[in-house]
Amino acid sequence: MGFDRLIKAIEEKQNPTVAGLDPKLQFIPEYIKQASFEKYGNTLEGAADALLTFNKGLIDALYDIVPAVKPQCAYYEMYGWQGMRALAETIAYAKSKGLFVMTDGKRNDIGTTMTAYATAHLGETDINGEMVPAFDGDALTVNGYLGSDGVNPLLDICKADDKGIFVLVKTSNPSSGELQDRLLDGVPVYEAMGKMCEGWGEDNRGKFGYSAVGAVVGATYPEQLAHLRKALPHTFFLVPGYGAQGGGAKDVAGAFDENGRGAIINSSRGIMCAYQKGDYDETEYALAARNEAIRMREDIMGALKK
Amino acid sequence: MGFDRLIKAIEEKQNPTVAGLDPKLQFIPEYIKQASFEKYGNTLEGAADALLTFNKGLIDALYDIVPAVKPQCAYYEMYGWQGMRALAETIAYAKSKGLFVMTDGKRNDIGTTMTAYATAHLGETDINGEMVPAFDGDALTVNGYLGSDGVNPLLDICKADDKGIFVLVKTSNPSSGELQDRLLDGVPVYEAMGKMCEGWGEDNRGKFGYSAVGAVVGATYPEQLAHLRKALPHTFFLVPGYGAQGGGAKDVAGAFDENGRGAIINSSRGIMCAYQKGDYDETEYALAARNEAIRMREDIMGALKK
Repeated sequence: MGFDRLIKAIEEKQNPTVAGLDPKLQFIPEYIKQASFEKYGNTLEGAADALLTFNKGLIDALYDIVPAVKPQCAYYEMYGWQGMRALAETIAYAKSKGLFVMTDGKRNDIGTTMTAYATAHLGETDINGEMVPAFDGDALTVNGYLGSDGVNPLLDICKADDKGIFVLVKTSNPSSGELQDRLLDGVPVYEAMGKMCEGWGEDNRGKFGYSAVGAVVGATYPEQLAHLRKALPHTFFLVPGYGAQGGGAKDVAGAFDENGRGAIINSSRGIMCAYQKGDYDETEYALAARNEAIRMREDIMGALKK
Repeated sequence: MGFDRLIKAIEEKQNPTVAGLDPKLQFIPEYIKQASFEKYGNTLEGAADALLTFNKGLIDALYDIVPAVKPQCAYYEMYGWQGMRALAETIAYAKSKGLFVMTDGKRNDIGTTMTAYATAHLGETDINGEMVPAFDGDALTVNGYLGSDGVNPLLDICKADDKGIFVLVKTSNPSSGELQDRLLDGVPVYEAMGKMCEGWGEDNRGKFGYSAVGAVVGATYPEQLAHLRKALPHTFFLVPGYGAQGGGAKDVAGAFDENGRGAIINSSRGIMCAYQKGDYDETEYALAARNEAIRMREDIMGALKK
């Protein structure tokens, strides 16, 4: 129920962070790319092979430190269906290592079309009577601009299969305010969207009080983050913007409730590309990622203890 | 520039309609599915094979009648990466027949991640120095909730490669008003989003006055549609909701300007599943689709002449 599986994994690892898996070729060490391109040529298949090798190395180095990974669909789609195959294989590999997988697709549509996305990313597809998983993540990010018709189709699958969603509420980017901060009868759009999340999750709350309908709230707006934590007491937060986008541990502290629960903080390039910053050889990219994930854990847990 | 390529194709075929390609297995004739499942078993690969066969039949029957097709990503993703391969093959086949392809993905993200989606669906991906197309549609539907950071990354590719986007403005679903109709300083959210489209498209307008940044506006809200046509004089409309969702030719007439330009009307199930309604054998699904596409053309062109 709710996000119980994720919250338990966070408590077991004492680490409310999720590692983004955004394997753009430019982030991947040369030695991995060379091997893949020698095998498959300069093709989408070669790129997809490099993506998967890179991801597996990261997952092997991180699975005992972080509770979850978040593959960003865009960085797989840009490598065509071959990239989408690497996405499916990455998700399967992460789950085999006990990781909770949040597929970052920001999908949105209505009715039966949204049901098709729910099936694609969280459920199983009916193939001539056999139920076959397609991408099979544990949670999916969703854009709520279309209203309840875009979210309701996900709720049944969340309940039946113990999955979750994160609806975009207040995003971390500089221009997020163009629409999201504007006032609807004195209430900002992002807060109205957050209130809708509370409603959508109402009848699927877990034992920690959080529902299966979470919200994406950026670390780069710490005041709004802390305000929303209080305004949305049953909504679990996925918080992007730590690290590369400028948010620090202090900025994200307000995302958590008085028990230190209620949020998971994402780092993508910070962890993935740690080898490009420190005193590492590129073959040590996985070790560098692990060290950064440990540093980030200490950083956030330290801020939470204050 | 702008949507000139699409507008020319509409004028050549005297038909402002786009055929949706949403090949859910339940819409596909049994004889096609049987052949695919015999070949590949009850697998995602078998499903994808059936999708592609169905789509090719539709495209062959429609390409001299309609100017454009609109594959809905969700119905490919639900069949895994194999379904995404069928999407890529469908797009390539449609383009080989001279059709303008609008990929309906409602993608959204920010910065480099949105650039990755732009690359995936409209541009080309850099693979070790070689530029390789991934899905290679002519236009992409986009969700603007994240503001300019989510749209700007698309504008360069639209200009460089003569592609276009459609931003969700007023969607056709019953609950679209939950957010979209609410008032921001007296102006509904959908109109504010529409005004942003006018701005985003400002420096990429074609010879018919329409920019490469279009808007999705549902046929099911004819008053708002007619109002937006006047309020957004440079924004080309993609209009869903005709047929299965209840909109008729009269409802969509307001989407067009005084020259009969400015919009393209979508029909998905109405055309795809025409064989399930009329006096057809399932093997005649393509003929049924063609007849319905011709009927729809007459219906809309008739309403436009009034």
